[in-house]
Amino acid sequence: MLGRPFLALGLLLCGLSAVEFVFAALDATVSDENWQGFLMSAVMSGLIGSGLVSAFWSAAQDRRFDLRSGFILTALSWTVFPLMASLPFFLSDLDISLTDAVFETISGVTTTGSTILTDLDHLDPMLLLWRSVLQWIGGVGIILMAILMMPFLRIGGMQLFQLESSSKESTLHTRPATLIRDIAALYVMLTLLCAAAYALAGMSAFDAINHALTTLSTGGYSTHDASLGYFGDARVYWVAIIFMIAGALPFMAYLKTFSGEARAFFHDPQTPLFIAFLAAVSFTGALFLPEDAGPNSFTRVALHVVSVTTTTGFAAEDYQYWGAGFVGLFFALTFVGGCAGSTSGAVKIYRFQLLALYATAHLRRLHSPSIVQTQTYGGVTLDRDIGLSVLAFLSLFVGAFSLGGLALTLTGLDLVTALSASATALCNVGPGLGEIIGPAGNFTTMSDTAKWMLTGLMLLGRLELFALLVLFDPYFWR
Amino acid sequence: MLGRPFLALGLLLCGLSAVEFVFAALDATVSDENWQGFLMSAVMSGLIGSGLVSAFWSAAQDRRFDLRSGFILTALSWTVFPLMASLPFFLSDLDISLTDAVFETISGVTTTGSTILTDLDHLDPMLLLWRSVLQWIGGVGIILMAILMMPFLRIGGMQLFQLESSSKESTLHTRPATLIRDIAALYVMLTLLCAAAYALAGMSAFDAINHALTTLSTGGYSTHDASLGYFGDARVYWVAIIFMIAGALPFMAYLKTFSGEARAFFHDPQTPLFIAFLAAVSFTGALFLPEDAGPNSFTRVALHVVSVTTTTGFAAEDYQYWGAGFVGLFFALTFVGGCAGSTSGAVKIYRFQLLALYATAHLRRLHSPSIVQTQTYGGVTLDRDIGLSVLAFLSLFVGAFSLGGLALTLTGLDLVTALSASATALCNVGPGLGEIIGPAGNFTTMSDTAKWMLTGLMLLGRLELFALLVLFDPYFWR
Repeated sequence: MLGRPFLALGLLLCGLSAVEFVFAALDATVSDENWQGFLMSAVMSGLIGSGLVSAFWSAAQDRRFDLRSGFILTALSWTVFPLMASLPFFLSDLDISLTDAVFETISGVTTTGSTILTDLDHLDPMLLLWRSVLQWIGGVGIILMAILMMPFLRIGGMQLFQLESSSKESTLHTRPATLIRDIAALYVMLTLLCAAAYALAGMSAFDAINHALTTLSTGGYSTHDASLGYFGDARVYWVAIIFMIAGALPFMAYLKTFSGEARAFFHDPQTPLFIAFLAAVSFTGALFLPEDAGPNSFTRVALHVVSVTTTTGFAAEDYQYWGAGFVGLFFALTFVGGCAGSTSGAVKIYRFQLLALYATAHLRRLHSPSIVQTQTYGGVTLDRDIGLSVLAFLSLFVGAFSLGGLALTLTGLDLVTALSASATALCNVGPGLGEIIGPAGNFTTMSDTAKWMLTGLMLLGRLELFALLVLFDPYFWR
Repeated sequence: MLGRPFLALGLLLCGLSAVEFVFAALDATVSDENWQGFLMSAVMSGLIGSGLVSAFWSAAQDRRFDLRSGFILTALSWTVFPLMASLPFFLSDLDISLTDAVFETISGVTTTGSTILTDLDHLDPMLLLWRSVLQWIGGVGIILMAILMMPFLRIGGMQLFQLESSSKESTLHTRPATLIRDIAALYVMLTLLCAAAYALAGMSAFDAINHALTTLSTGGYSTHDASLGYFGDARVYWVAIIFMIAGALPFMAYLKTFSGEARAFFHDPQTPLFIAFLAAVSFTGALFLPEDAGPNSFTRVALHVVSVTTTTGFAAEDYQYWGAGFVGLFFALTFVGGCAGSTSGAVKIYRFQLLALYATAHLRRLHSPSIVQTQTYGGVTLDRDIGLSVLAFLSLFVGAFSLGGLALTLTGLDLVTALSASATALCNVGPGLGEIIGPAGNFTTMSDTAKWMLTGLMLLGRLELFALLVLFDPYFWR
């Protein structure tokens, strides 16, 4: 049961080691500040990784890959990998605690984007790039997991997106290895496009690369304390808007489009609603922006609406000063999320659509029990198993958010900070509300207890709760 | 379809008219302030009520009582009845708007207890008694609905509590008419006991009667602006604690106890957990009360924990000053509620138990799909229908709370006020958080828009969402 997961983890750590070696070499060349930390991290990741690979090499012969191995691989790669990847922070000249290093790394790979680092503008550029790369790796990691693993594990209704069922109406027939290659190529291509667009919009090459890495992954780490506000340029904002949306769309639809299915995005039930929702909310919001908003009010509202809804978390200004309604709006948007099979977190569009379908069907069955109802979503017939999966997900999601918020108030945080911190971590968004962790704030002043709670919530949200919770069922280990 | 519901509504309004006549007579004798308002209300209720009864008298012959009639009767009696019952406020010397009169009445009959009235200590005593009686009527109304109607309508998992299934292991076999008589007698008896206990604890006869009416109904209206804090007496607090719990226990268990099933409360899966939860939270809370708390710290914490959890809403002091953790705690407790088949609102204990059971079963099925699981709750075998009912309820409950909170921020309220107002209305608790509607606050300064939203949320919560939402399904009316 454990062989193949440990082998896969070993390979992941070897890959991490290789990247860290590159960073050590680059740092020695560019800034000469933290190459020792990167080098030590590379050696440690390499040792553990190659040790695991050699110890479990025989498992590669084992063709069986059962459910439990899937869950264990998922949990291992999203905990051990970030723990190892936090070493470059911990061993750097930042002089931060292990708690802070782990918080920053988990916030990175889960593409949350909450940060405990301040004075980003004067940080070793290689550390900034490391943060961006962590988000970028986490982004492609979650896409692959959402497409290949989650439907197999039947997490939170993701069985709807099984490749067999979705390929029925599609021209796409492909093996996992081909799919991984295609997704990775697409992800790289979109990132390069985004970087080029940022550069054209006026960013320096370094800023363009970093922000491209964190835009497409809907992560939201920036190279400046002022985030995108540093640039104050509508062109930059629009590049961000377009590529945050690009990262929050279902990646299978891109592949289908390239393989000739021209209207793939329209066939997906999520995309049209998602785009319409963003446009409607941004447009309505712009109408209510205070008078001193200036000519770019639609751009500014759209930037932040898209940033929070796609769970990216870039900010160009503190939208809490726009009025009470906007505070409520952004709190609500925190929970929305993008499409399934993208880099974005939170509840996601399809679950709202399924909730509406099941709730309507349930209402109808209440007053007319004999009615026969058959419902489909994206060509798949909905059964009670999918309904239970989605509704159980929603109930536990809210439960995790509530318990997280309650626990955070017990550490002494006010209600708005605690609830928004719990929400922003669980939904992998980034900024919260209130003075401490608002869009202009920072998580550095939080207690270590609170930081560990938030780290747990980020992982719980990123792994759609159930992929992590199964491990706590004693029966799992029998 | 409409005959029997309108007949029943007519009878209810005739009953209301009779009570209002008594109030007119009493007011003319006691305070001579508002007897005209009571009299006019009595005449109007009487006219409409007797009109409905004579128009639909023939429907009494119709023995069929189908699902739709049940939903229509439920909705009619919880909207038209309170609208008519708000007239004594509107026609009184209080000089309040229709919005305020309806808010106060709906808050009363739903046993919420949020108030827009100030200077209660100098109000016409008959108006104070009218408020208390509204809560008391609403309390027994919801018990009867929860026992006789909700299981039949299969709302939110209430089908678990169908009389046939619960009577299997019970000595209780009874017709609805007998049951109504027994529940009413029990309710009156408990109220009298409570009033006697309050009087013994030092309350005046008038205060004892009013508070007994609003304690047992877990309503929370008081005759003083300072609520129970006016008395500042631990004996009063303990009477309140005991009878708020009494009102939040499953009323069927009382009847079973009286009919000889000595351990009925222990056989009910909710009661032991509910009591243990209240004790554990109160005890833990008392440990963390600030140092200036004085000797009665356990009493003071228990009073407010029980008050909020049972959805009563009495307050003796502003617990928001106890610290950030308490603010989070009381916000969370708002959602808990008491047992099914009681006067309390909110999510209720059995739904948390069912969520835990279904979530565990779901987790187990994720990693071991071939496992055969049979689960029971209180002797009833759980099926997927009950699971879908409960989970759909929980998801929509959270949806209603969130949309309510968002809509309230759009009226200009800060996030804490908006979220806690939405929660306290939907859960029928009473006080919210923040300076405006906190335990020491009042809803009078809210905008009319906000008041109507809250009125809607109170009804939605009291009718367990689905009993109201079915009416908005176009298919319902075919």
